[in-house]
Amino acid sequence: MRIIGNIVDLIRQAGSLGQSRVRSEDLGDALQRVSPEEGAEVLRALRPYEAAQALIDAPTETVRRLLEFIPDETVAAYLDILPMDDAIDLQEEMGMERWERLLTLIPAQDAAEIRRLQAAPRGSVGRLITEAFFRVGPDSTMEAILADLRLANPAKYETINDLYVLDDADRLIGVVSIRRVLRSRPDQTAREVMDPEPISVLRSTSGEEAARTMSRYGFYALPVLDEQGRMVGVLTGDDAQEILQEAETKDVLALGAVSGSAEPYLSLNVWHLYARRMPWLIGLFVAETFTGIVLRHYGQSEEGLNISPLMYFVPLVIGAGGNCGSQVTTTITRALALKEIQPGEWWKVILKELLVALMIGATLGLIGALRASAPAPFGWEQELSMSLLIAFALPAIVVWAATVGSCLPILAQKAGVDPAVMSAPFITTFVDATGLIIYFELAKRLILSQ
Amino acid sequence: MRIIGNIVDLIRQAGSLGQSRVRSEDLGDALQRVSPEEGAEVLRALRPYEAAQALIDAPTETVRRLLEFIPDETVAAYLDILPMDDAIDLQEEMGMERWERLLTLIPAQDAAEIRRLQAAPRGSVGRLITEAFFRVGPDSTMEAILADLRLANPAKYETINDLYVLDDADRLIGVVSIRRVLRSRPDQTAREVMDPEPISVLRSTSGEEAARTMSRYGFYALPVLDEQGRMVGVLTGDDAQEILQEAETKDVLALGAVSGSAEPYLSLNVWHLYARRMPWLIGLFVAETFTGIVLRHYGQSEEGLNISPLMYFVPLVIGAGGNCGSQVTTTITRALALKEIQPGEWWKVILKELLVALMIGATLGLIGALRASAPAPFGWEQELSMSLLIAFALPAIVVWAATVGSCLPILAQKAGVDPAVMSAPFITTFVDATGLIIYFELAKRLILSQ
Repeated sequence: MRIIGNIVDLIRQAGSLGQSRVRSEDLGDALQRVSPEEGAEVLRALRPYEAAQALIDAPTETVRRLLEFIPDETVAAYLDILPMDDAIDLQEEMGMERWERLLTLIPAQDAAEIRRLQAAPRGSVGRLITEAFFRVGPDSTMEAILADLRLANPAKYETINDLYVLDDADRLIGVVSIRRVLRSRPDQTAREVMDPEPISVLRSTSGEEAARTMSRYGFYALPVLDEQGRMVGVLTGDDAQEILQEAETKDVLALGAVSGSAEPYLSLNVWHLYARRMPWLIGLFVAETFTGIVLRHYGQSEEGLNISPLMYFVPLVIGAGGNCGSQVTTTITRALALKEIQPGEWWKVILKELLVALMIGATLGLIGALRASAPAPFGWEQELSMSLLIAFALPAIVVWAATVGSCLPILAQKAGVDPAVMSAPFITTFVDATGLIIYFELAKRLILSQ
Repeated sequence: MRIIGNIVDLIRQAGSLGQSRVRSEDLGDALQRVSPEEGAEVLRALRPYEAAQALIDAPTETVRRLLEFIPDETVAAYLDILPMDDAIDLQEEMGMERWERLLTLIPAQDAAEIRRLQAAPRGSVGRLITEAFFRVGPDSTMEAILADLRLANPAKYETINDLYVLDDADRLIGVVSIRRVLRSRPDQTAREVMDPEPISVLRSTSGEEAARTMSRYGFYALPVLDEQGRMVGVLTGDDAQEILQEAETKDVLALGAVSGSAEPYLSLNVWHLYARRMPWLIGLFVAETFTGIVLRHYGQSEEGLNISPLMYFVPLVIGAGGNCGSQVTTTITRALALKEIQPGEWWKVILKELLVALMIGATLGLIGALRASAPAPFGWEQELSMSLLIAFALPAIVVWAATVGSCLPILAQKAGVDPAVMSAPFITTFVDATGLIIYFELAKRLILSQ
């Protein structure tokens, strides 16, 4: 309630100051910290243009929940206000049925543009472009171009840093920067001053590749062509930035054995976190049993390596602890790096992580215990006490790993050290050793004392 | 030679076409693939403005080697051409002595600006700004501003998307976009149309934080203030982009237990790779011995856990393999994601990785063998045969891990799968199991057969 109070204050203030405004990025960020009902109330208090922008800048999961509290007409009004490449983002956050209904509520021309964008394959840059770029003919003079710019609708164009020179068949033949236009003589033509070798991509190019091309050359917008060389739109800087950040986050999370898209930490609930981690853990769990098989093979071979059955489960147990710890650290370090977690919110994070760890630990413990006592070749044919040990040891170690994995990066940041230093490899190694102590202490009580 | 031939061709072509040009980003990229002598020859063939840009866009290590083949006067000419925030980058690539000598060769005013930037603490945004931003007074009219823009030296300003409104004391009181200037009436003043609440950062802010602020709000440039609120410069989009990409790479590499800055893969030689990985490996090696200590403790305790001494070294051995594999995969996956490695260059990568693995394996094997036979409390007081086993097993496992870690991401990419899927956790787990086979097979031959 403190936060929503602040937001409403900010909005009132903005209204009274006239020119001043709350930035949509800050509003979008704040929306994930309030309930969907409160969020919808905030949006109603804003002018539609600002509400639409805030919605676009809020995390996917937050928007998904919020949209249930906003009537169709209002969402359609937002769609109509937004640049089409942003409007299309909202589709992911509602069912196809509602989306189709909304498209009938907005002007037919906009709906047609949205359908054109949606026809491009998922992940391709063709889906992310805006058709509203500033085009000029090769024979337009600088004077005429400046006059056109003065009359252009400011809401329509996301960027006017580069103007695109198109021939009669809509083929891109050059680019002129606004700077160049300002500095050239008023009677010079676009053809005379343009860069005749503009860098462009095909609309079938992947979004990430297009964004990397743009960042490589330091462009603010990148022209996108169809297969006939006709210019169909531009990828704008804000979208490219977002694609790159999401791609980075996805790669970082994959390194830490977490799958899923680049959603801000606080917008995900415990079920989301559980669902993004379990598939990897089960995969790694299966893989880790091969290490156990190798140990067992040499332990039972005639050379008499003398390995106690208790040892067969060591790779599984330390693997589960290490992998969970690395998932937690990676997730939290990334959220800290992107400033998704504010200083006062660490206790929320630790509580959430402990809850997720309990759920994961219980799941892994169950699977592990079943495996331990199941008959060969799927199980290890161990005694019941061994199954019991696994059923208790795995949750204990996973919760311990989550505690270490969530507290260390936060403590590092509080101490002014880059949390990335408390990185996954160190936490894995630390959890390996301490997890083994938990395992053997439980073993002493459950097995060796019998 | 094929590559340098291509570059020289490109340059000739560019010269003859007049307006067309080779992009400095592509040239900078190509420079890392040729010898420094050839690179210096390429730069000589270019116009000084383009040579200076290409130098800035080449990787640090490449530039360091190249600069030894370029005379002081030429480097000074480059420094003079470059925007100061780019020029200062060259300092890292030469000795302080040569740098000071160069500063005496360039105009005193530029040298003074460079010294001001250098006075800012390392890592702060104050070191990365350019002082050449476009400033206007609050009472300037749109007409006057456009006239000024027309006369401004294009090489001086990196960006003119935002114009900064400063009062008499150089305090930033507003920002006007060029778009706004174009669309406002010629007689309106800056004060009337400006955004009176511009977002800015202090020059002591870290570069990464400033870049994240910029990316959050989708700005093309970010004003930077001194402690008295006076505007001292702007952080430009290209620099922010570079800071973010380097920060991401650093975080990704830290997750894979590799330290060091974000240098492109091909610009690093085997010694660089060795130096970026060894410190982590030694740290993890020490940490991993704690796991061994735990195993030994329970193995020797009265409960009779029945652990063979051969088992004490299992965490160390599989840890070393897993960590090396994860380092290699992380490095190569990142290089593939950033397109630093071209399709024909995979054999170069694998050869380099095998060489580095041999060096790392030999080092770890030596340390491990010494530890195994050294007296307590520093060593494990094992027989010579155990030391021999460690000395052979570690290099074998590390080389095996490097083979798996470098081939899998490359194969994934060839198969059209995102290499990030072949990620460190899976490779670590795979190397764990297969590394153990190597260890036990060697153990059978060296210890158990005696």
